[in-house]
Amino acid sequence: MRSMKPRFAITAGDPYGIGPEIVLKSFILHPDLNTLCIPVIFGSRQVLEQMARSLKIKVIFQSVDSLDQVEEQGDLIHCYDVQPSFTVSEFGRICAEGGEMAYQGLQKAITAAQQKKVQAIVTAPVNKESLRLAGVPYLDHTEMLTELTGSTRSMTLFVTGTLRIFFYTRHIPFAHIAGALNINKVVIGLQDCQRNLKQIGFEQPRLALAALNPHAGEQGLFGREEIEILVPAVKKARQLGILVDGPIPADSVFHLAKEGKFDAVMSLYHDQGHIAAKTLDFRRTVSLTLGLPFLRTSVDHGTAFDIAGQGIADETSMVEAIIAAHRYYW
Amino acid sequence: MRSMKPRFAITAGDPYGIGPEIVLKSFILHPDLNTLCIPVIFGSRQVLEQMARSLKIKVIFQSVDSLDQVEEQGDLIHCYDVQPSFTVSEFGRICAEGGEMAYQGLQKAITAAQQKKVQAIVTAPVNKESLRLAGVPYLDHTEMLTELTGSTRSMTLFVTGTLRIFFYTRHIPFAHIAGALNINKVVIGLQDCQRNLKQIGFEQPRLALAALNPHAGEQGLFGREEIEILVPAVKKARQLGILVDGPIPADSVFHLAKEGKFDAVMSLYHDQGHIAAKTLDFRRTVSLTLGLPFLRTSVDHGTAFDIAGQGIADETSMVEAIIAAHRYYW
Repeated sequence: MRSMKPRFAITAGDPYGIGPEIVLKSFILHPDLNTLCIPVIFGSRQVLEQMARSLKIKVIFQSVDSLDQVEEQGDLIHCYDVQPSFTVSEFGRICAEGGEMAYQGLQKAITAAQQKKVQAIVTAPVNKESLRLAGVPYLDHTEMLTELTGSTRSMTLFVTGTLRIFFYTRHIPFAHIAGALNINKVVIGLQDCQRNLKQIGFEQPRLALAALNPHAGEQGLFGREEIEILVPAVKKARQLGILVDGPIPADSVFHLAKEGKFDAVMSLYHDQGHIAAKTLDFRRTVSLTLGLPFLRTSVDHGTAFDIAGQGIADETSMVEAIIAAHRYYW
Repeated sequence: MRSMKPRFAITAGDPYGIGPEIVLKSFILHPDLNTLCIPVIFGSRQVLEQMARSLKIKVIFQSVDSLDQVEEQGDLIHCYDVQPSFTVSEFGRICAEGGEMAYQGLQKAITAAQQKKVQAIVTAPVNKESLRLAGVPYLDHTEMLTELTGSTRSMTLFVTGTLRIFFYTRHIPFAHIAGALNINKVVIGLQDCQRNLKQIGFEQPRLALAALNPHAGEQGLFGREEIEILVPAVKKARQLGILVDGPIPADSVFHLAKEGKFDAVMSLYHDQGHIAAKTLDFRRTVSLTLGLPFLRTSVDHGTAFDIAGQGIADETSMVEAIIAAHRYYW
C-alpha cells in the first residue's frame, strides 16, 4: 500500500464554518500536498464553488460518484458531492442544516474508508450545537467515528512536529484527576499507546509516562502518586514488554520527547498534554484518532463561525493534518 | 540609572558544580554581554583560573575588594574573590565546603546589591545538600535572598522569550491545588503580579489568569472552580484597577501571552507554568526573583555534578539570565 499514492477523504465539515475555505486553501495554496495524496473532498460542491469564487481562486471541480474512478487528473479537485443542491446564504450560522451536512459527509467518508477506497480521513471542524440541532446522536467527531466503526478503544494522539502526546484522562474536572489514577488503568493506557504507535509505524515504540506532582513528587515530598501508582505501573508495563520510562517530571518530559528521546508521552490529563503541544506551536498541532480501522487526522480548532466566509481563515492546521495523514496512514 | 551601564554581581554558585564554567563561558564566548553590563563574578578566583586553564581560555582576572573601583577595563574579568585560598581538587562533590563557598558568595553579592553597588544579581546554581552540610539555615537561593533582605513577598517569574509566567502555587502536591484556590488569595496574587511587573518596567501590565479545568470548565461541565472562584476573583481584581483577563483555558493562554497579547500569565500551579515555559524552550527559560529590593535572575538548572569539570556544560541559560537582568533591572 505504501508504495502507491494514497487516497484521502477530506471532509469539509460544517459548511457554515471555515471548513470549506481551509480545505480549498490547503490544496490550492500548498500544491505540494497533491504529491502526497489524491484528495477527495467530501462536502457540498456548490459551497466549495461559492468559496472559490469569493476567494478569487480558479479551480475546476470534478464530482465523483464512485471512488474507484478517482485517479490523478492534474489540477482537478475531486469532490464527493454530499448534497448536490446545498448552498449557504449566510455563513457563521448554527443550524440543523449545517450539522446534517457535516454528519452526512463524515458518514460517507467512513464508508469509503471501511471499504478501503480511501486510506485515511482528514476532517475539517464540525459544530457540536449544529449536530445536536440536526438530531445527530453523537457529541462530536471522535464519538461518531468510534461508534460508526464499532470501535471500542479509540484514542487521541496530539502531534506537534516531533512531539507526540497521548492522554490518560481528558474531559474531567481537574479535582478528579488524581483520583482517576490507578495502576491497572495506567498499564492498560500504556498498552493502548504501544499498540497504536505500532499501528502507525513505530516498530518498537519508546514511551514516556509524565509525572503528576511537581518534580515527580520529589520522593514523596510533594505527593505520593508517583510512588504508589506510577512507578509500580511503569514496572508492570515493562514486565509486559512495553518500552516505557517514567514517571518523568512534566516540565522535562515533553522537551525530551520533542528532542527525540521518546516516540510519545502519555500525559495524565487534558491540560498537561495540551499546554505542551499548543504552547510549542499552536497552529501546527494536529489531532489523530487511533484505534479505528483506519487513520483519522484532524485540525485542532473549531468552526470559527465568527470569521467564516470572510476569506481570512488560516489553513495551517489543515495542511498539517494532511501531512500527518500521509506520515502515519497504514 | 538606566542611562549608565549597570554593574551586575554574577555569583559562581557551588564551586564543585558547573557554575564557574558557565559563568566564564558566558562572558568569553559571548563578548556582547560585556556591552550590556559590567560583570563582577562573586566566587573563587583560583577556581575560575583553574577552569580557564582546563577550558584553554586565555583570560586575565582582576580581583576587586571594593566595587567602587570597578569600571570597564577592556578584557579583564573582575572577580570578587570570596575565599582567596580556595581550590577544587575534585569536581562534582557534595560537601560542606561547596555549600559554604556558595553561601558566602551570595551573601556578599546581596550586601553589594543592598548598597546599590550592583544593580542586579545573576546566580549560578547551588546544591541544596551541600548547603545543608555547611549548616546554612536556608533551603535554597530564593529563601536566602528573601530572608537575608528581610523581604516578605518574593515571587518567581519565569521568562522564556516573550512568555512570562507567575505561579499561584508551586511546591505542593497536585491533589492539593484545587483546594488552594480562593478568591482573596487569587486577587492578592494578581496584585503581586501587577506590582512586580511595574517594578521591572511594565507601566500598565496586562495580565492573564490561567484556568484550572479543561476548556476553563466549559460552563461548569468539567469543574466549577472557574465559576465559583476564578471569575469572581478576576472581577474583583479589575475593580481594583488590575488589567487582567481570564480565566483563559490553559492550552491557549500561554500561546496568547507568547504572541504579545499579555505581559504575563498567572499560572495556578507548578507544572502548568513549567510545562509551558520548558516545552517552548527548555534551555532559554530563566527565572527572576521579584519582590526583593533588587532584581535577581537565575539559570534554571542545577549544579549538574555529573558533568562538572568536564568542560561540556551548556552556558545558554546563564547567558539568557544575564540578558534578562539587563532587560529587567531597575
